[in-house]
Amino acid sequence: MDHSSQEVELLATRKFRVVAVRRPDGGVKEVVRHPGAVVILPLLDSDRVCLIRSYRISVAQMLLELPAGTLEPGEPPEETARRELIEETGFRCGSLRHLHSFYLSPGILDEEMHLFVAEGLTPGATAREPGEQIENYICTWETAMEHLDRGDIRDAKTLTALLLWNRKNRSW
Amino acid sequence: MDHSSQEVELLATRKFRVVAVRRPDGGVKEVVRHPGAVVILPLLDSDRVCLIRSYRISVAQMLLELPAGTLEPGEPPEETARRELIEETGFRCGSLRHLHSFYLSPGILDEEMHLFVAEGLTPGATAREPGEQIENYICTWETAMEHLDRGDIRDAKTLTALLLWNRKNRSW
Repeated sequence: MDHSSQEVELLATRKFRVVAVRRPDGGVKEVVRHPGAVVILPLLDSDRVCLIRSYRISVAQMLLELPAGTLEPGEPPEETARRELIEETGFRCGSLRHLHSFYLSPGILDEEMHLFVAEGLTPGATAREPGEQIENYICTWETAMEHLDRGDIRDAKTLTALLLWNRKNRSW
Repeated sequence: MDHSSQEVELLATRKFRVVAVRRPDGGVKEVVRHPGAVVILPLLDSDRVCLIRSYRISVAQMLLELPAGTLEPGEPPEETARRELIEETGFRCGSLRHLHSFYLSPGILDEEMHLFVAEGLTPGATAREPGEQIENYICTWETAMEHLDRGDIRDAKTLTALLLWNRKNRSW
C-alpha cells in the first residue's frame, strides 16, 4: 500500500520504519511500518512438528516458537516461507499451504503475518543469521499441545498457528 | 526490565520508543520498546461475547477484534483491563481472570499482551479516545467461532484469545 502522500518518515532501520500518519480526526499517530513476515508450521509426518527455541533480544529470553522470518523486498510470502524454513531449521519442504494471514499489533504496527503449513520435509543444513541463537525442537503434536496448555508458549504467532491447525485438523 | 545500560534511544513517541541494543555477537539491533498491553474477552452470559469493530490507521481498515489497550505508567494490567473495557465498550465488569500473557512480535517489539476474561458485565457509557472509531459487536460464541473459521478475524491477540478460551472452556 502506498501511504507516502499522507505520512512522514521519522526513522528508518534495517527491519522497520517509523512514520507519522494523519488520523481521520486531524491528529497525528506514529506507526511502525514493516514489510510483512511468514510463520511456518513444519509437519514432519502425521505426528511430529518442528518447533524452535529462539533467543529474543527484545525480551531477553528464549521463546518456544515456530520458524518465521521477514519478507525480502519483492519476495512472495511462499518463497520467504521456503527460505526461512531452510535457514532456521534446515528442512526443505515439498509442499506449502497458506492457512491464514493476520496482523500482530495493529494499534502501532502494520506487520502482517502469513501462516503456511509445510509438509514433505527433507533435513539439511541450516543458514542461521549472525547473532541468531536458534535450535530445533521436534516433538509430537500431543507434546506441542501440552506445552501450550501449560503456558510454555508465549509467542502470539505460534499460539495462533498451533491453535488454528489443531482446530481444523486435529483434536487434541 | 532495565535495559538502559545496554541500549541507546533512537526515537520516542507517545506509544513506544525505538532503541538500539547490543547483540550477544557484538552487532546492533533496533528494537521497539512498548509498555505492554491488555486484551479482554468480555463474556455477557453463558452464550454471548462482546467483540469490537475498530478502524486501524496502521493498516487502513476495520478489524474485528476484542477490546484492548496500553498500560499507563505504573498501572497494574488488571486495572488497565477494567479501564479499557469501559472506555472501548462501556461495560463495567464484576470479575476479571488472567488467562495467559504473550508477546506479539518479539523479533522487533517487546510488547507483552496480558489476556483477561471479564464477567459480571454491566452496560454503561464508553469513553473512546479522540480519533478512535470503535463499535461494539455482540454475538453468540458460535457466531464468533464462525467468523474465526471463515477467516474474518485477522488480529493475532483476538485469534489467540478466542482459540485459547474455546479450547479450555468451550468446544465449538
